[in-house]
Amino acid sequence: MPDRIPPDSVGVVTPQHLTFHEPVALLCGRVLPHLELVYETYGELNAARSNAVLVCHALSGHHHAAGYHSADDERPGWWDNCIGPGKPIDTNRFFVVSLNNLGGCNGSTGPRSINPETGRTYGPDFPVVTVRDWVATQAMLADALHVDRWAAVIGGSLGGMQAMQWAIDLPERVAHAVLIASASRLSAQNIAFNEIARQAIVSDPEFNGGRYLDTASNPARGLMLARMLGHVTYQSDDGLRDKFGRDVKSGDLAAARDVQFQVESYLHHQGRSFSQRFDANTYLLMTRALDHFDPARDFNDDLVAALKRAQSDFLVVSFTTDWRFAPARSKEIVDALIAARKNVVSAVVDTPHGHDAFLLEVPRYFSVLRAYLQHVAERVNAR
Amino acid sequence: MPDRIPPDSVGVVTPQHLTFHEPVALLCGRVLPHLELVYETYGELNAARSNAVLVCHALSGHHHAAGYHSADDERPGWWDNCIGPGKPIDTNRFFVVSLNNLGGCNGSTGPRSINPETGRTYGPDFPVVTVRDWVATQAMLADALHVDRWAAVIGGSLGGMQAMQWAIDLPERVAHAVLIASASRLSAQNIAFNEIARQAIVSDPEFNGGRYLDTASNPARGLMLARMLGHVTYQSDDGLRDKFGRDVKSGDLAAARDVQFQVESYLHHQGRSFSQRFDANTYLLMTRALDHFDPARDFNDDLVAALKRAQSDFLVVSFTTDWRFAPARSKEIVDALIAARKNVVSAVVDTPHGHDAFLLEVPRYFSVLRAYLQHVAERVNAR
Repeated sequence: MPDRIPPDSVGVVTPQHLTFHEPVALLCGRVLPHLELVYETYGELNAARSNAVLVCHALSGHHHAAGYHSADDERPGWWDNCIGPGKPIDTNRFFVVSLNNLGGCNGSTGPRSINPETGRTYGPDFPVVTVRDWVATQAMLADALHVDRWAAVIGGSLGGMQAMQWAIDLPERVAHAVLIASASRLSAQNIAFNEIARQAIVSDPEFNGGRYLDTASNPARGLMLARMLGHVTYQSDDGLRDKFGRDVKSGDLAAARDVQFQVESYLHHQGRSFSQRFDANTYLLMTRALDHFDPARDFNDDLVAALKRAQSDFLVVSFTTDWRFAPARSKEIVDALIAARKNVVSAVVDTPHGHDAFLLEVPRYFSVLRAYLQHVAERVNAR
Repeated sequence: MPDRIPPDSVGVVTPQHLTFHEPVALLCGRVLPHLELVYETYGELNAARSNAVLVCHALSGHHHAAGYHSADDERPGWWDNCIGPGKPIDTNRFFVVSLNNLGGCNGSTGPRSINPETGRTYGPDFPVVTVRDWVATQAMLADALHVDRWAAVIGGSLGGMQAMQWAIDLPERVAHAVLIASASRLSAQNIAFNEIARQAIVSDPEFNGGRYLDTASNPARGLMLARMLGHVTYQSDDGLRDKFGRDVKSGDLAAARDVQFQVESYLHHQGRSFSQRFDANTYLLMTRALDHFDPARDFNDDLVAALKRAQSDFLVVSFTTDWRFAPARSKEIVDALIAARKNVVSAVVDTPHGHDAFLLEVPRYFSVLRAYLQHVAERVNAR
């Protein structure tokens, strides 16, 4: 391992591909003739196959959660601060699996894949995907890896929704579910923010009805706006102030039409970078999955009844300044879990970082996660 | 007055126009060769000219605050619930003045006006306008109306900023300043939301560098996105839930690409309607004025020093669920006013309606406003 890769990293990792040749029926009624999933693993599966942990990604995430793709790789995976030897998700104890979800744009079957029925990319014709479809296809991956039961399914935000759905849909296959900065369903405000982001994308003339790949175009402005909106709402007002204050790039009133505040400059950069690496149809699909997530709906809007099916224990973590997935939303889950007589540990972590905190090394958050997962490791005899 | 106009309305009103033929120097250094302001008045100026009240509008407001433009007019002015005989801003006592601010798109000189130097509309070349410029041009209107001193200057949101600036810039001309759901300057989060709205507009291909009038186009999609974002952030999460819940228009997953939730449908309607009646360059200009408002800046970032100049008394009102102009922002103003030894009355009104509450008939809010303005009327001998 080259010098520049830190010793507590999982090191250089290689994404793996799995192709399922049987048709996959989705909740919307449509059938995918075959399915490809790209994933990475960190750590070793033990002989008892009891130490596997599934990491579920959020809106714009992917399979590359930890380590580096090469010795020259400039940035590690998106959750590298949390996954590795000695880290909260300790690869000395756990066999960690991280995949790009169905519908993604990082290698798994999605809108950029070729539709075998037409011979061209799915684009906007890709089927509607739900959190339940993700759980079902993640279970296919578990089968392929010969993992009967996850020691833990872990996720933040939309990832936490997948962990919750796992516990409900496949209760015998989840020992612990870790739900971080999540919710049992979105609020009207959250749906509204998602809809503005979607409108920004579909109203971009380069969106071309979702057929932008056919014309070698890209609704980059729309994706940029969507990302800017995400960035602002995933941070707290205090967090943005601490980061940028009201620092003015140019105090010249006459130039007031250009970027003037540091926060604007930051947003432009984030938005542009995102628009070059993410697929617009995937963004639409992922936000729709978020909007429609509502496990209680199948149980007469009774979340307690839904969670009664679970056989796992739960850790629920939220962050004080997260206003998109507020502590009150996590408290609803905790209350329902208690009413359903489940073992649940919960923590509300004080941090200025808003929703984004779930990706950051917030000391108390990582302590809680580390302690809980040590307990998990002991229970499942992870070695 | 026709039957359908309610008896507590100011009735049918006619906008008035004032043209100032002398050049107007703006803070940005540019000079407007002449200035036209459109305004309305409600109630009668008393003999002592002591009962005049100035109403300052917010981001998308205009001069038509109360009454109807004709007997067939479907909707009254934007603050008709608050201005009229017997209403909190009581036209039996006060002579109320409401104007469209410089840079607006409802009749006052703005981006849609003809630039006499070029013979075509200003469009994007309209000068940068600040809250201080508005106060200065509102003072020109006061002069023309022979109002030396306002009994009160009243405004919500950006309107409250104008009331504050009046008290600082022209202290001898303001007896009372009423600041509703306002702030002494925007937070980084607020600037960020404004910037996303601006980017939505300027990235609309029909924006045409701001020259959309020349090509008979309109950046309607951008304006729609900006308005949608405003609508969501001006309401509280609870308010949106109370209004829309998660009511689904269509439960059909297969149709999930179209509008599905009631809240989306509402936002689309609001956004489209706005895009047909508002000018994009005015929107950019107004949000820039918001961003740059910072009266403390001229006093070494010392708000107390700025407010020490004021000779008026103050009423400061905020709303519990307003997260864009939160009670904490109003508290900063109140604390600074106390430190500056000013008479200040403040109220934090409990309501689920977020920032939009300042436009709504919230009982405690209207009680506070009514009581304070009765006190004002007695002090200035309004008859």
